[in-house]
Amino acid sequence: MKKCLVLNNREPIPEDHLNDLSGQLEIVWYQKTDPVFSLDKAVAEHPDTRLIITTYMDLTADYLRRMPQLEAIIATTISTHFIDSGYCREQGIQILNTENYTGSSVAEHAVALMMAGMRKIPSIDHEVRCGNTDCFDFPGAELAGKTAGIIGFGNIGSYIAQLLSGFNLRLQYYNRSLCESQIAEQVELNSLLQTSDMVFLATPLNNDSHHMINASALKRMKPTALLVNISPDEVMDMAAVRDALHAGDIGGAALDLLVVDFFLETPNTVLTSRRAWYTNECFNRRIQQWKRTLQNYLLGQRQESLVGLDFVPIRDYAKQS
Amino acid sequence: MKKCLVLNNREPIPEDHLNDLSGQLEIVWYQKTDPVFSLDKAVAEHPDTRLIITTYMDLTADYLRRMPQLEAIIATTISTHFIDSGYCREQGIQILNTENYTGSSVAEHAVALMMAGMRKIPSIDHEVRCGNTDCFDFPGAELAGKTAGIIGFGNIGSYIAQLLSGFNLRLQYYNRSLCESQIAEQVELNSLLQTSDMVFLATPLNNDSHHMINASALKRMKPTALLVNISPDEVMDMAAVRDALHAGDIGGAALDLLVVDFFLETPNTVLTSRRAWYTNECFNRRIQQWKRTLQNYLLGQRQESLVGLDFVPIRDYAKQS
Repeated sequence: MKKCLVLNNREPIPEDHLNDLSGQLEIVWYQKTDPVFSLDKAVAEHPDTRLIITTYMDLTADYLRRMPQLEAIIATTISTHFIDSGYCREQGIQILNTENYTGSSVAEHAVALMMAGMRKIPSIDHEVRCGNTDCFDFPGAELAGKTAGIIGFGNIGSYIAQLLSGFNLRLQYYNRSLCESQIAEQVELNSLLQTSDMVFLATPLNNDSHHMINASALKRMKPTALLVNISPDEVMDMAAVRDALHAGDIGGAALDLLVVDFFLETPNTVLTSRRAWYTNECFNRRIQQWKRTLQNYLLGQRQESLVGLDFVPIRDYAKQS
Repeated sequence: MKKCLVLNNREPIPEDHLNDLSGQLEIVWYQKTDPVFSLDKAVAEHPDTRLIITTYMDLTADYLRRMPQLEAIIATTISTHFIDSGYCREQGIQILNTENYTGSSVAEHAVALMMAGMRKIPSIDHEVRCGNTDCFDFPGAELAGKTAGIIGFGNIGSYIAQLLSGFNLRLQYYNRSLCESQIAEQVELNSLLQTSDMVFLATPLNNDSHHMINASALKRMKPTALLVNISPDEVMDMAAVRDALHAGDIGGAALDLLVVDFFLETPNTVLTSRRAWYTNECFNRRIQQWKRTLQNYLLGQRQESLVGLDFVPIRDYAKQS
């Protein structure tokens, strides 16, 4: 039986999900729920691993070399940039990822963040729980009549527009290629930044979108505008966003981030930590999706292996601050 | 010149708003922003008051009797139940209220509360600021495919349905009289409670709606359902709602309340303190509205005076808890 190592230091996955494959695989779980989670230990204890299921582990060549029988790595994520694809290509190790599991969850989170930011819900909830029920200090903004700008009009961006279609907003979007919409207008990035009361970042990370929201872009935004991010952190120059918030160059930010540290002391922010996908529905769909990839692999079905996509390397945020 | 007393212990009103009437009125402001706010003091110092502008002051006969020249009271609110209408009727004192100023703000707040509740935004924001960026404990719920039920389908309730029209939700409403909708289905209250994943309370307070959400209604709701309230507190039996949340009989509650004390220790709640109307746009529209009523009064125009509406008296919540 092939040994399959499940490596996960994020949201715990119920370990009964692979029970029906126990006749074909020896499954070993390493999750953060264990007393000690250690990638080193996992690799040292299981050099005979043939398959890896992984969530954002930094699988460098150094680690991978210690498992010489490795055949395939299934990432439970869309991104696979944390796996040394050069080494895998050399050794004929397949890299398979997990896509199309987010459904409406991410776009809905973007709209939830926007509304929480415009109506200052977390601040009011917090004040009320501290005994201040007056809360004069948190006037909201009415949405009807305002303009929403969506940067990136793929599945998520266009679904944000659909969610907002009943809001009596003017809807506009920027997308690097031309695309059609019945409910929103395609505009230049500059024009979007200058005229939007809320700016949604819904673009994947690539060489064009890296630091798209930098000091110069922020200066073009309305001083009352709310920035909403469900894109990878690196679409923003986070130090510049923080500075713009402190200076009042923009009105607020509602951000779903991997690295929240920049904004813990920043006014007018709503923060979630990469929770846009994290609904019960999406969580289960995601497991079903990578499990299907695993089953297909075991059946010997051909699946697209990922190599050398247009990913920007993860930045060292410590250096930016 | 007639003396006009402005009594306001809520959100401070900028005192330059009536400057253009200073030729016709002697305006005296008593606001919470003063070092000491006292209704007693205001009435004692200004027995010659002819007009009162008031925000939720308990103007009992005892107070009103001390201002024998009083001609009219303009409430800056829709409700006027805090003014002794019997005494006013006897004395020929007009009671004028302020309506139709909320625009889309209240319905938008209801949707903001719903999304904050379904995605647990305040809890995640709070956890993140406490240094816990994992937040495994706050999985959200995906909206698409679910059912929203709206109780009360007047201006606010029907606008909630419009806001949700792009969400891929099944939309249903209960209203005591028959009313039409292109996007939502009118159903019986029982059926709405049993089948809705989120229940919006958007009904005015009247003898039918008082404690409409009681223990029996809560038992009929789904154990995962979210209760969203922007109606007056008294539409709910708040002790019963609190108990249902503690028992897990419903999934959560996102409530805009006058009295929040019931829920400060209750799990799965999002709380705001009567902030649904409190946008900058609505705040200014409201001032313009009661100012127009004041101007019309000064011009001698006939306006509808309010007496004896179907209001339920304010309950003593201390007794309920």
